[in-house]
Amino acid sequence: MNFDKIVAKLSEINDNNFLYHFTRNEMPMPSIESLSCIMENLKSVLFPGFFGNSDIKKDTLKYHIGASLDLTHKLLSEQIQRGFCFACEDKNQNCIDCNKNAQDISTAFIEKLPTIKHLLSTDVVAAYNGDPASMNHGETIFCYPSIRALTHYRIAHELRRLEVPLIPRIITEMSHALTGIDIHPGAQIGEYFFIDHGTGVVIGETCIIGKNVRLYQGVTLGAKSFPLDENGKPIKGIPRHPIVEDDVIIYSNATILGRITIGKGAVVGGNMWITKDIPAGEKVLFDQKNIMH
Amino acid sequence: MNFDKIVAKLSEINDNNFLYHFTRNEMPMPSIESLSCIMENLKSVLFPGFFGNSDIKKDTLKYHIGASLDLTHKLLSEQIQRGFCFACEDKNQNCIDCNKNAQDISTAFIEKLPTIKHLLSTDVVAAYNGDPASMNHGETIFCYPSIRALTHYRIAHELRRLEVPLIPRIITEMSHALTGIDIHPGAQIGEYFFIDHGTGVVIGETCIIGKNVRLYQGVTLGAKSFPLDENGKPIKGIPRHPIVEDDVIIYSNATILGRITIGKGAVVGGNMWITKDIPAGEKVLFDQKNIMH
Amino acid sequence: MNFDKIVAKLSEINDNNFLYHFTRNEMPMPSIESLSCIMENLKSVLFPGFFGNSDIKKDTLKYHIGASLDLTHKLLSEQIQRGFCFACEDKNQNCIDCNKNAQDISTAFIEKLPTIKHLLSTDVVAAYNGDPASMNHGETIFCYPSIRALTHYRIAHELRRLEVPLIPRIITEMSHALTGIDIHPGAQIGEYFFIDHGTGVVIGETCIIGKNVRLYQGVTLGAKSFPLDENGKPIKGIPRHPIVEDDVIIYSNATILGRITIGKGAVVGGNMWITKDIPAGEKVLFDQKNIMH
Amino acid sequence: MNFDKIVAKLSEINDNNFLYHFTRNEMPMPSIESLSCIMENLKSVLFPGFFGNSDIKKDTLKYHIGASLDLTHKLLSEQIQRGFCFACEDKNQNCIDCNKNAQDISTAFIEKLPTIKHLLSTDVVAAYNGDPASMNHGETIFCYPSIRALTHYRIAHELRRLEVPLIPRIITEMSHALTGIDIHPGAQIGEYFFIDHGTGVVIGETCIIGKNVRLYQGVTLGAKSFPLDENGKPIKGIPRHPIVEDDVIIYSNATILGRITIGKGAVVGGNMWITKDIPAGEKVLFDQKNIMH
Amino acid sequence: MNFDKIVAKLSEINDNNFLYHFTRNEMPMPSIESLSCIMENLKSVLFPGFFGNSDIKKDTLKYHIGASLDLTHKLLSEQIQRGFCFACEDKNQNCIDCNKNAQDISTAFIEKLPTIKHLLSTDVVAAYNGDPASMNHGETIFCYPSIRALTHYRIAHELRRLEVPLIPRIITEMSHALTGIDIHPGAQIGEYFFIDHGTGVVIGETCIIGKNVRLYQGVTLGAKSFPLDENGKPIKGIPRHPIVEDDVIIYSNATILGRITIGKGAVVGGNMWITKDIPAGEKVLFDQKNIMH
Amino acid sequence: MNFDKIVAKLSEINDNNFLYHFTRNEMPMPSIESLSCIMENLKSVLFPGFFGNSDIKKDTLKYHIGASLDLTHKLLSEQIQRGFCFACEDKNQNCIDCNKNAQDISTAFIEKLPTIKHLLSTDVVAAYNGDPASMNHGETIFCYPSIRALTHYRIAHELRRLEVPLIPRIITEMSHALTGIDIHPGAQIGEYFFIDHGTGVVIGETCIIGKNVRLYQGVTLGAKSFPLDENGKPIKGIPRHPIVEDDVIIYSNATILGRITIGKGAVVGGNMWITKDIPAGEKVLFDQKNIMH
Repeated sequence: MNFDKIVAKLSEINDNNFLYHFTRNEMPMPSIESLSCIMENLKSVLFPGFFGNSDIKKDTLKYHIGASLDLTHKLLSEQIQRGFCFACEDKNQNCIDCNKNAQDISTAFIEKLPTIKHLLSTDVVAAYNGDPASMNHGETIFCYPSIRALTHYRIAHELRRLEVPLIPRIITEMSHALTGIDIHPGAQIGEYFFIDHGTGVVIGETCIIGKNVRLYQGVTLGAKSFPLDENGKPIKGIPRHPIVEDDVIIYSNATILGRITIGKGAVVGGNMWITKDIPAGEKVLFDQKNIMH
Repeated sequence: MNFDKIVAKLSEINDNNFLYHFTRNEMPMPSIESLSCIMENLKSVLFPGFFGNSDIKKDTLKYHIGASLDLTHKLLSEQIQRGFCFACEDKNQNCIDCNKNAQDISTAFIEKLPTIKHLLSTDVVAAYNGDPASMNHGETIFCYPSIRALTHYRIAHELRRLEVPLIPRIITEMSHALTGIDIHPGAQIGEYFFIDHGTGVVIGETCIIGKNVRLYQGVTLGAKSFPLDENGKPIKGIPRHPIVEDDVIIYSNATILGRITIGKGAVVGGNMWITKDIPAGEKVLFDQKNIMH
Repeated sequence: MNFDKIVAKLSEINDNNFLYHFTRNEMPMPSIESLSCIMENLKSVLFPGFFGNSDIKKDTLKYHIGASLDLTHKLLSEQIQRGFCFACEDKNQNCIDCNKNAQDISTAFIEKLPTIKHLLSTDVVAAYNGDPASMNHGETIFCYPSIRALTHYRIAHELRRLEVPLIPRIITEMSHALTGIDIHPGAQIGEYFFIDHGTGVVIGETCIIGKNVRLYQGVTLGAKSFPLDENGKPIKGIPRHPIVEDDVIIYSNATILGRITIGKGAVVGGNMWITKDIPAGEKVLFDQKNIMH
Repeated sequence: MNFDKIVAKLSEINDNNFLYHFTRNEMPMPSIESLSCIMENLKSVLFPGFFGNSDIKKDTLKYHIGASLDLTHKLLSEQIQRGFCFACEDKNQNCIDCNKNAQDISTAFIEKLPTIKHLLSTDVVAAYNGDPASMNHGETIFCYPSIRALTHYRIAHELRRLEVPLIPRIITEMSHALTGIDIHPGAQIGEYFFIDHGTGVVIGETCIIGKNVRLYQGVTLGAKSFPLDENGKPIKGIPRHPIVEDDVIIYSNATILGRITIGKGAVVGGNMWITKDIPAGEKVLFDQKNIMH
Repeated sequence: MNFDKIVAKLSEINDNNFLYHFTRNEMPMPSIESLSCIMENLKSVLFPGFFGNSDIKKDTLKYHIGASLDLTHKLLSEQIQRGFCFACEDKNQNCIDCNKNAQDISTAFIEKLPTIKHLLSTDVVAAYNGDPASMNHGETIFCYPSIRALTHYRIAHELRRLEVPLIPRIITEMSHALTGIDIHPGAQIGEYFFIDHGTGVVIGETCIIGKNVRLYQGVTLGAKSFPLDENGKPIKGIPRHPIVEDDVIIYSNATILGRITIGKGAVVGGNMWITKDIPAGEKVLFDQKNIMH
Repeated sequence: MNFDKIVAKLSEINDNNFLYHFTRNEMPMPSIESLSCIMENLKSVLFPGFFGNSDIKKDTLKYHIGASLDLTHKLLSEQIQRGFCFACEDKNQNCIDCNKNAQDISTAFIEKLPTIKHLLSTDVVAAYNGDPASMNHGETIFCYPSIRALTHYRIAHELRRLEVPLIPRIITEMSHALTGIDIHPGAQIGEYFFIDHGTGVVIGETCIIGKNVRLYQGVTLGAKSFPLDENGKPIKGIPRHPIVEDDVIIYSNATILGRITIGKGAVVGGNMWITKDIPAGEKVLFDQKNIMH
């Protein structure tokens, strides 16, 4: 083997080569390890006693929450800045401003935690009420993929709302890998949301989901197709995913595509392929006549 | 940011707040790390030479198995007790009795291991015979999601049979996260069971599955709907999932819902939505006339 | 509990018992930990700056690539030899030859890396062009399950082509566990391939996929059934999975089974069940008349 | 090798065999790992910003200190109980009382931390003033063996005062291993104490050391001999080590043995062997006439 | 900086350059990590319940000991072979013979463990009887540098007796780093040996120490000078360290050099410099007249 | 316990309190973990094949050395900057200059590595020639405390020469903890230096040591006393430690204090206390008449 030659070939760089990532100011890529640590800290803040230093007492709880939040603020600030650096295309960008901006966003995020906690508490209720196999609320917090995925999503969604690049996507991919539930951080999801079992669920970037919605495993809320620009590249950011109104239930493996509306209280049966609006209250099922015996 | 105020808000507890877990007797939540260690030990006992200290010899094997079992007994006793503590609602419960009970259950579980090992050996045969891509039995033991998921399930099922709270569910969620196969510990599954590929499979709490059954990825054996009690909460524990008799094959992404029976030897085609009994021996397929060109 | 008796029972071995793995020459099972290290090194070589020691510079890049490749060569040689040992059934096999053979294959694999890198670069382009939610190429490299799964697959496929036993399958199962995408190392896949979201995708051993193909989550390219030999065992290695020609798109949860051909430029709608050829350019969709309201 | 026979021989136990440690109530030996964690937490409380989560701010410091103390209390309670169990010879001992006692001692220890912190602050001043090579107080806190050894000693001494068995000795042996400074937890040491370099220093169990004392490496404050009881065993607990009064300096490798007194302000030269009282203010040196050229 | 030039300079190798270690047959250097694991296993075998899986029971002890021994045998065989490879100067050496030889030595070592255990049990008695501060035998096993250093020494000595290169020295340096006690594996030491405190003790390669000897910290049993060969290199292996007969006590920081004999029952005072024989029963002390006031 | 009150007390800060370390610009304390990583990388560069990825080959060595150096440069730059921040007293200091400065010093250090490597090669020769128990040069590199301590010292000395604060001291304390050898980074030491056994050796900040010097364990090259300034604080930086000329041997536990000169080729016997010049070639020994029998 001509080892030197292979090394040389693999080291070749031409300026536009997107397979290489050169940093500015030695700011490395976001750290999965640090983001995992952030998520562990946030889970111990949002669900005290279930995660983290699990033995909590009423009179010392505030210290644990304060310490975890302060550490989170510090770690998150750095990851946000790495996100900015990753996305930065302006060679004249003032990095000190970015650092300040990252700190401010991290602070704004911390301030939103009570709201996030409230939303997740409704998700816990939805999981408990939506699954006859669930024995108590605590079991859903500690074990259920739905709560794990929604914890990641609701945190990532807030960071995206604060215009942090890349980091929200990493956070949802972390739970995607563990739960098989793929919720884009851009999706908007109301309270009391529950996904049973969850593997294979996809919720696209521009979805709008109301309150008290329940999905089962394998449900897709996706795009039907997407317009290309004059260069044949997909146009980014166009609303292209479903709107799902309050109180809807969608059973396993149903595929719902395009900017359509599933009306309030509708029920979509399993394995359906839906590309048109469903009126409020309607139940759509797979017609069993189509089974060939 | 008023940091102290956010901390105070996040530390507020009212007595019924299910987002906080207070322990009794400083007994912490079950430990995922310890349960992983238990599973590693059990896999080295059930499949010696494949997992664990992988270089085994006939004359020293018994020492490794004995040491792993003894360690498992100790670790499992503690996790079972944590499970009891988690589920305990009786403030006057005698914890010493619980400790004794946990030890006894751990012992009873160890006594069941030869049976569990036998069942898994049939699952290995089923995997080898059921997949033309499989090169030998060892490959299925070492690599196949089916064997991983069933090892977790068969262990969790036995612990549930012994009335251990929470722990069985954690054990199956551990394999759910890795394989995408979600088998509820309450399900009853006969010997020679095989799930090919597996991602997205859901097998509900009250399923009863016979011998020699084969599933493909994305198959749901779920509940159709569930009755609510007078408070609008789902009634727990009602039989609501399918009965699948011996020798059935169910192809990918089929959804089978409700307490129906798939008769002996039946074949269910992929992407089907089944909510009614299928007679023994019948093949049901997606009618390709329903494809729109 | 009669502990000694249970240990004795679990330690019983009869000569043909496939639940025990005895090694030859003390060669242990392949190491998941070492293979993870190999994959980390290869990712840092294929996508410098994105993975590994993430701060790269033009003038020192070659040292990092050389060091990673040299380490990979050494680690991979050993894992390949373990693979040979696992599969070895010839008690008279000369292990020194196997060692030499493993080294040679490891070398041949390293020599193929520029080709693998080129293929993956086309997959990155396909991911960026195929997903309106993607912000830049780097995001797909760092976050997308498609790139993770294809990196594992393209490496495993090359090792299988070099006739390494077991190791390729372990490598694809590693990404299967993380992404829910199950690509058999034997499948042949052209350039510019993209799998969006990915959970639940299955691509079988004898699939042949052309250039510029796009799949969505839950798509199965599987076998319809498989012939058994005179002993009732499946015959290994028969072509039994679909051929998918260039420019095909297959939407979520479609199941395509058997050695059929999906013609160039065809589009298969979501949740379809396809067991017959689809002509080039044809679009097949779920007929929405089959929905029961 | 007759492996079984060797195992049997090494497993033989007779009831009085002190080489085996059987626990009561499954209480394991104290954990070095947990004690290390306790020491890390205590160092972050005693020297905030130098150790632990090193980036502290005035307005969040209290949370970090509160969280570290609460965790320390919990971990230390358990280690204290393990210490009791280790030393317990009463088969009828009520373990629940021991648990309560351990908790109370852990609390009492926490209450003493401000005093310990004050003492250590004087030791830091002594180190800075006593070493011309020291650049600032912070360097002595972060780098100096003296401060490391005294932090362990002052903590261990307080635990011994609270009558905790075994644990204090483990804590001082931890710093002995790292610094070569062996201070028995029973020794009494006044404020402003400094040991320069430190390797080889021994300070015995019944030493009494005043304020503002300085030692150099290799100094022994030991016992000359010790009386035996009627069984030929050493009688435990008799005062047998030196009393060193305020403002004494003892140079390197000096050996001072027995319950003698080194008077206030005395200076002992290096390599001396002292077994008799030294009056206050006296300087004793090695007579250089005894050098043979 | 001309980085390439510095790298080139640091990569230059001439054939006799002893700063580079090239392996034969890809056999790496001995692994400190593996040797630590071996020592942990051996300590759990020699002192069951004190180290390792600390909760032992009479009826399962044999499994833990058997499993630890079997693992030790395997790990140690490999390290012994690495030792052989390190020392090997014969380019035609048959490595397969070395492997066999390493296995045999590992077996012979295991067979010696009951003897080693007996010797260490006498050292534990000596530590307990020799230190008034010791509370019980268990404390000396768990905490005392003397027992730690002697456990390493007695194991290393046996391996050296079996003519294993390099590994014995590594094992004693591991305890040297932790205890400050430097015992050469070649030294011969009788039963009931105790070193109090221990930091700074040196016991040379050709020392012969009788039964029931006690040393204190800083004692050197060293060589006075050593003859050179015609090339000015020290001649290896000549007896050059003291013989210390039974029942001798040597106090702290005494230096005893050369092949002299310290007679039975002699006592050597602290800080002495001894280069001549001391008759049996004699006490030699530092003459306090030599103190200059 | 009034927990809140204790926390409040331990959190009190007054502005001059040296027990708290507040950072500027969120620059944390130097990281022991990172410095350990730097030392591991440097050892693999200085002694290829002995440390690090131990299997080296002539044709790939340069890649490993280049990669290790590049990583070292990056890690070391950051630690140097942390050192500057730690020592910084100028609130108006421009941190960007400090960052640049740290990078430059890291570069200058890398450029000095060939010189450091040469010096260490002479130390390896000195160790091999100075110890009859040493079997080959490799053993001294891999096992000897002398080489470990000198590797740390020679690296730290160069960093101190480059005026890096704090970091050099941390690096020598790392080896002090492991070897018991305490060499101040400021000391100047010539080539072919050897310290046998080493525990307890102290070499002070202003020592000047010539070529081919050999020390034994417990030797102190220290300060006799030090002048105080008008505030009673020691004056920093005054030459106060011995000058040791070429070819000197100093035996164990000798204490040599003050700015005196030990002349070329002198020999100092063990346990001596020397505070005056020793002429070249002279041997000074402990007069054995001073032993009291």
